[in-house]
Amino acid sequence: MEELKPSPANSCPLTPLGFLERTATVYGDCPSIVYHDATFTWSQTHRRCLRVASSLSSYGIGRGDVVSVVAPNTPAMYELQFAVPFSGAVLNNINIRLDARTISVLLRHSEAKLIFVDCASRELILEALSLFPHNTPRPALILIADENEPAAVNSTITGGDFLCSYEDMVERGDPGFRWVRPRSEWDPMVLNYTSGTTSSPKGVVHCHRGIFLVTVDTIIDWSLPKQPVYLWTLPIFHANGWSFPWGMAAVGGTNVCLRKFDASITYQLINRHRVTHLCGAPVVLTMLTNAPDNRPLDHPVHILTAGAPPPAAVLFRTESLGFVVNHGYGLTETAGLTVSCAWKPQWDKFPASERARLKARQGVRVAGFTEIDVLDPKTRKSVQRDGVSLGEVVLRGGFVMLGYLKDPIGTKKCMDDHGWFYTGDVGVMHEDGYLEIKDRSKDVIISGGENISSVEVESVLYTNPAVNEAAVVAKPDEFWGETPCAFVSLKDGLVEKPSEKDVIEFCREKMPHYMVPKTVVFKEELPKTSTGKIQKFVLREIAKGMGTTSRVSRM
Amino acid sequence: MEELKPSPANSCPLTPLGFLERTATVYGDCPSIVYHDATFTWSQTHRRCLRVASSLSSYGIGRGDVVSVVAPNTPAMYELQFAVPFSGAVLNNINIRLDARTISVLLRHSEAKLIFVDCASRELILEALSLFPHNTPRPALILIADENEPAAVNSTITGGDFLCSYEDMVERGDPGFRWVRPRSEWDPMVLNYTSGTTSSPKGVVHCHRGIFLVTVDTIIDWSLPKQPVYLWTLPIFHANGWSFPWGMAAVGGTNVCLRKFDASITYQLINRHRVTHLCGAPVVLTMLTNAPDNRPLDHPVHILTAGAPPPAAVLFRTESLGFVVNHGYGLTETAGLTVSCAWKPQWDKFPASERARLKARQGVRVAGFTEIDVLDPKTRKSVQRDGVSLGEVVLRGGFVMLGYLKDPIGTKKCMDDHGWFYTGDVGVMHEDGYLEIKDRSKDVIISGGENISSVEVESVLYTNPAVNEAAVVAKPDEFWGETPCAFVSLKDGLVEKPSEKDVIEFCREKMPHYMVPKTVVFKEELPKTSTGKIQKFVLREIAKGMGTTSRVSRM
Repeated sequence: MEELKPSPANSCPLTPLGFLERTATVYGDCPSIVYHDATFTWSQTHRRCLRVASSLSSYGIGRGDVVSVVAPNTPAMYELQFAVPFSGAVLNNINIRLDARTISVLLRHSEAKLIFVDCASRELILEALSLFPHNTPRPALILIADENEPAAVNSTITGGDFLCSYEDMVERGDPGFRWVRPRSEWDPMVLNYTSGTTSSPKGVVHCHRGIFLVTVDTIIDWSLPKQPVYLWTLPIFHANGWSFPWGMAAVGGTNVCLRKFDASITYQLINRHRVTHLCGAPVVLTMLTNAPDNRPLDHPVHILTAGAPPPAAVLFRTESLGFVVNHGYGLTETAGLTVSCAWKPQWDKFPASERARLKARQGVRVAGFTEIDVLDPKTRKSVQRDGVSLGEVVLRGGFVMLGYLKDPIGTKKCMDDHGWFYTGDVGVMHEDGYLEIKDRSKDVIISGGENISSVEVESVLYTNPAVNEAAVVAKPDEFWGETPCAFVSLKDGLVEKPSEKDVIEFCREKMPHYMVPKTVVFKEELPKTSTGKIQKFVLREIAKGMGTTSRVSRM
Repeated sequence: MEELKPSPANSCPLTPLGFLERTATVYGDCPSIVYHDATFTWSQTHRRCLRVASSLSSYGIGRGDVVSVVAPNTPAMYELQFAVPFSGAVLNNINIRLDARTISVLLRHSEAKLIFVDCASRELILEALSLFPHNTPRPALILIADENEPAAVNSTITGGDFLCSYEDMVERGDPGFRWVRPRSEWDPMVLNYTSGTTSSPKGVVHCHRGIFLVTVDTIIDWSLPKQPVYLWTLPIFHANGWSFPWGMAAVGGTNVCLRKFDASITYQLINRHRVTHLCGAPVVLTMLTNAPDNRPLDHPVHILTAGAPPPAAVLFRTESLGFVVNHGYGLTETAGLTVSCAWKPQWDKFPASERARLKARQGVRVAGFTEIDVLDPKTRKSVQRDGVSLGEVVLRGGFVMLGYLKDPIGTKKCMDDHGWFYTGDVGVMHEDGYLEIKDRSKDVIISGGENISSVEVESVLYTNPAVNEAAVVAKPDEFWGETPCAFVSLKDGLVEKPSEKDVIEFCREKMPHYMVPKTVVFKEELPKTSTGKIQKFVLREIAKGMGTTSRVSRM
């Protein structure tokens, strides 16, 4: 059978971009995007995306050029997930919460030719460009106006630094534009800088094939029905909103746009638009459950959470309100979920707290992904499936990134010749084949030779009803090497605030003594990255600054 | 970004075989297969498939060898869809309804090394092998016993011609066998002979990538939930049951096995197992609605129908019983659905008969497929989107076959350098972008220079309450060149049977005169292919044999 080779009829490149055209045919008259009082149809969205792509093309933007977008979850932001790659360009969403210096570095690193700038980020981007060295070519700027943005910076007058407005591009563009199909499915489609928790951002490049595969795999994993109503609580600039811009086009969903997550507004939008699905990091679940006006839902709302290990207590509280929570695990480097905690029917019979504990595990690979494993750091072999033996989580499959832009060494470091992608996350494999992430490699605390998972200590802290957020890091210790140090923010309006001693006592009852935090620091708020992750490296610095403990009497 | 190339961590071959291992992890204790009083779990099915693959391997079967299976939809048949490719071999399901001579030709053409034979096909295969020329190597035989098969041929005593029984292979195999992953996703995985409606069968070869893509695309298109209960009314030997053996493993469904379609038994099984999904050619819908003991369902059952254009009247009657019908279009050459009649919400408001008419159209490409079009036979350009202009349906996408085995000319003929696969089906494109198949190229009737779609005439005949089945073919005519000739079988138990004149009058009221059949032939039953399609070439021969009509007075 060796004579049978791929041919042009069957080897057409996989890409998620074709979803939009099909959905415009099927759901042309149905809502695609809802934003405040405006509603677009899929037919309109399709034509608007083609128009913008056509305008990009008329500006000379084409195959392989980088086009950046700095915007929250507005209709324009949604459209650009199609419009930019429709022009052949590589889409680079930039986190609006970054500072001007960082953005300046990213823009020079990516050599972006053009930037779409939301009105609220106008000053930020102008400042970032002012930091460009002399004689460095500057990207063209397009302003996205938004009458719903109260910030004074909002203005339809562009001029000066801006080439034109986003709506100008829509208006001037040709809705009959023939979008630029990738020549190969391995052609780059998106570039996402990981904010990570360290100071050196990396440019993750994904190809059309990878984005296609993660999108269809996530649709199947979440059993997305046709025409869901999806609320954009997850920022699209965060790993392309885990690829749901394309996923919603595939199933003809309604995208309810939202500039900024807010728990009260989320409850209002859920009721107003009969939202069926939304995504968010565990912090979103925490905010939904801790909101003073939280209320049981009158219809089921599916939440997919990922981005950090969710404490079981948070899952439990979220489900008590009527949300149906699914939990998964992925990285910017995998464009979306690679693992999800597929629910076993026999777990239904367990009490709610036990169900939450099981659901807090990351789970099994999604169906279309090839393999996951946990490797012993020394032997490089699979760890025992005992739920205890720690190792590094490794992955292989169709949506592992192509690599880091202009960083062959960084790319090589995390993808070796054995065909594994090394995540840098530490986990265990349970007897039943479910993965559980215990920590980032660098967040493991080594105390008296014992490895302590900071995530495990945190998940106990979260079961304390007074605790709002908790993070545990290593504090240098002369005797033990390191000891766990807990940073805790408390809930608003507590009648009686717990003391450090109370918290330590609470932990002693619930975990082995060596894992109990020796120090507890109360904070108004924990420092976060631009994507809402707690910045453990900041806390680690604080813990270091507190000096080493010379002696700990009890064990 | 040109430096970023595929690497072993992200370019692992796509294959549907990994679905089974994952589902054994998640749904290990849940039912995989139900057959009479036996139930298997996913954990058992996974281990049984690995055992059979291991035994195949110990017989020297490996990468690239062809292994044939001649069986109805039994548990073994389901397992072999995984077990054979697990061994690295190419899976070749053979239609049990073929005759010994044809099977003999196929086995020699495929050079099958080994055949799994269901007990009821034992004599058939022995006869097929007896037709092998002297000195031709013969495949090894494995007998699949089945205590539920009443045929006398059933016996656990194998010996003689048979190497061993299927259960022997299960028993002797190693459940820890490491299945043979494809080296490339373009490696052949299945070989399916199209019974077609002509006498020269062709060996369609699909690769792992193609089967993976059609499987995930169909899951999304049908919005398959997790753990559906799927009744195997569609023969697995018919284009691998449109790839649902792998699809059911992906979503952890329950496979209710069934040796032979029977309307009464189907209703019983639907009730007994709370069946949620099933597939079938339109003839299955006809049989379900015409069954004397048909009854409204007490829970929704989704039917996916494809394989031939369903008359709107049949769709209408099926939905009246409570079935939720989806309609799609594919070919053996595409491994499953490429097009489906995606439902537009605004159609809900139409009356049921109009809804059925809309649903009888083939529809739009499934989301992950690249393109479909209808080309004018002369200009080779897209026909007008007017619902009238006839042209050939052409396709391109990830699950178009690799090609026909040992037939480079046949392969080249249907897949040209423009990257289209030519289906040989004639259709129109409607204004709303929905495809409608009008006929096979060779089934179009050309009467007085007018093209008549036989399918269109048939769909009118089906609206006659007395008609059970109808097929219209060309009858040579001195004056008109050809005229439509209708073959009709009538329903059982009619009080008054219509005459030829009645049927012609019925048609005259409902279609242009030139389309009205000039001849109507009543038959007890229409001749069918082994896959249940009406054999138009047989009817055409009969029509020819009736001689040419010298003159037709009316027009």
